Amino acid sequence: MKLTFLGTGAGIPAKQRNVSSLALHLMDKNNTIWLFDCGEATQHQILYSPVKATKITKIFITHCHGDHIYGLPGLLSSRAFHGATTPLTLYGPNGLKDYIDISLKISGTFLTYPLIIKEIDGQGICYEDAEITVHSAELNHGVTSFGYRISQKDKPGPLLISKVKEAGIPEGPVLNKLKKGEKVKLKDGRTFKGTNFTGPPKKGKSVAILGDTSPSVNAVRLAERVDTLVHEATFARNENDLALKYGHSTTLHAAETAKKAGVKQLVMNHISSRYQTAEQKEKLIAEARAIFSESDIAEDLSSFNI
Amino acid sequence: MKLTFLGTGAGIPAKQRNVSSLALHLMDKNNTIWLFDCGEATQHQILYSPVKATKITKIFITHCHGDHIYGLPGLLSSRAFHGATTPLTLYGPNGLKDYIDISLKISGTFLTYPLIIKEIDGQGICYEDAEITVHSAELNHGVTSFGYRISQKDKPGPLLISKVKEAGIPEGPVLNKLKKGEKVKLKDGRTFKGTNFTGPPKKGKSVAILGDTSPSVNAVRLAERVDTLVHEATFARNENDLALKYGHSTTLHAAETAKKAGVKQLVMNHISSRYQTAEQKEKLIAEARAIFSESDIAEDLSSFNI
Repeated sequence: MKLTFLGTGAGIPAKQRNVSSLALHLMDKNNTIWLFDCGEATQHQILYSPVKATKITKIFITHCHGDHIYGLPGLLSSRAFHGATTPLTLYGPNGLKDYIDISLKISGTFLTYPLIIKEIDGQGICYEDAEITVHSAELNHGVTSFGYRISQKDKPGPLLISKVKEAGIPEGPVLNKLKKGEKVKLKDGRTFKGTNFTGPPKKGKSVAILGDTSPSVNAVRLAERVDTLVHEATFARNENDLALKYGHSTTLHAAETAKKAGVKQLVMNHISSRYQTAEQKEKLIAEARAIFSESDIAEDLSSFNI
Repeated sequence: MKLTFLGTGAGIPAKQRNVSSLALHLMDKNNTIWLFDCGEATQHQILYSPVKATKITKIFITHCHGDHIYGLPGLLSSRAFHGATTPLTLYGPNGLKDYIDISLKISGTFLTYPLIIKEIDGQGICYEDAEITVHSAELNHGVTSFGYRISQKDKPGPLLISKVKEAGIPEGPVLNKLKKGEKVKLKDGRTFKGTNFTGPPKKGKSVAILGDTSPSVNAVRLAERVDTLVHEATFARNENDLALKYGHSTTLHAAETAKKAGVKQLVMNHISSRYQTAEQKEKLIAEARAIFSESDIAEDLSSFNI
């Protein structure tokens, strides 16, 4: 999996940082893209990124503040303009359906693809298939704000051919069963357990992408031992009171959550436009690294491997 | 008056041209700005322009297609973020109020200023004050689409002091009345008509800003003898059928309307993203100039004096 940050700013667009949006590339899933939030001009940012609107199959909204949703009607329309026919599913808090419905209706927009809107309550699994599970949980932001944890399932390890030969197991369909870890019985009566003939399973990757939030128990739960945590850091650590007053986090809060959750990598976004210079950015990063060394700040259009 | 084009493209945003928006600077009116249409990322374009969101007091919407309105919720929110307290009035077709209400409600947006939404029927005068009249009329676009004509009222000519002295009129408040063209009576019983003591009135400027349209009688009426006509030219002249099918105009249509209306200057906008090169642009301009010599095409962030 890979992340491309389309907008990393807070509240209103600035020249350096657009409002929130983040693309998750699922390379193992036919290069499908899932979007997290869709602030105004997300479709404009996409023009300068490796993201294609037609490849987006799911959009997860963390919360309904304008800087996280006002780009939705335009992106949905453009996806139709580009001829998409594959369904798109939108997940997010209550109210989203009314907003999308009226935006598309007033503009006379005809979608060329099925749009499914799932208003969720942020409790438990909101999506699951054979390869991936998405958990959501409510955070701490004044309005309903969700975090999402996207976990790839573990894949079985490779078949250990040398062991198979050693045991004198003949080639054939039986090897496929062994590879899947199943129990097999040969014609000569011998039985074997697949798990004895496969290497260690390939651990699935995981990423937690959080909406705006002050420190929260659910943030730590969602992020537990993930490979990458995307956490807002609207303010520097000296703005603790301001952050808490408006339901936001400082660099310190983000780093503490990363540390408590035992994640591998912290990527901070949703940076206030008051921090515009390279020096300010370095200071914010240093504040986080003092608590959690594997911390970084995302720039618009930057990518991070998970 | 002066125009700043914030978005000059058609349908969806492209790197060269954003979707529709146009600022009218009213330098005689305390540098107030009126906006015409507000496609997505208009507030982003404003960051690179001389326009200030707090100076915008009116927004006129030509029609409700997404590329003309999806920037409204974000701009209204940002205007509040920047601390505006002066009222803003929004004019446009039916449905606009519901769209704005739901967009602001779902996002929990609190406006710091009074927002007045006037849904108009596009018949006659939609705004008038001591200095300016705005007429609207319905065009020809499949959905309700308005054109607006903004006319400055003529200003009285200057008081001709030499004539005043010649007639032996004494100084005092009476001169102010004469200047306004009023009739005055002196203490000695003599009467004078102000119009005999003022130079020719200063002609007010006028501009017609049209929404998307195929050729239309109302377009010609609105534009009659204006200083500047802003007319869409989505397509080149060889795409006549395509233009008419989708309720749009070619360069030829725009130029013919300008010619019929006897305008001074034609500025074309709403250019399809299929025309991206400098050569294509020159060809489009040449097509219009073959019919109406004072034709030009607006670029994003370009300005035109009226």
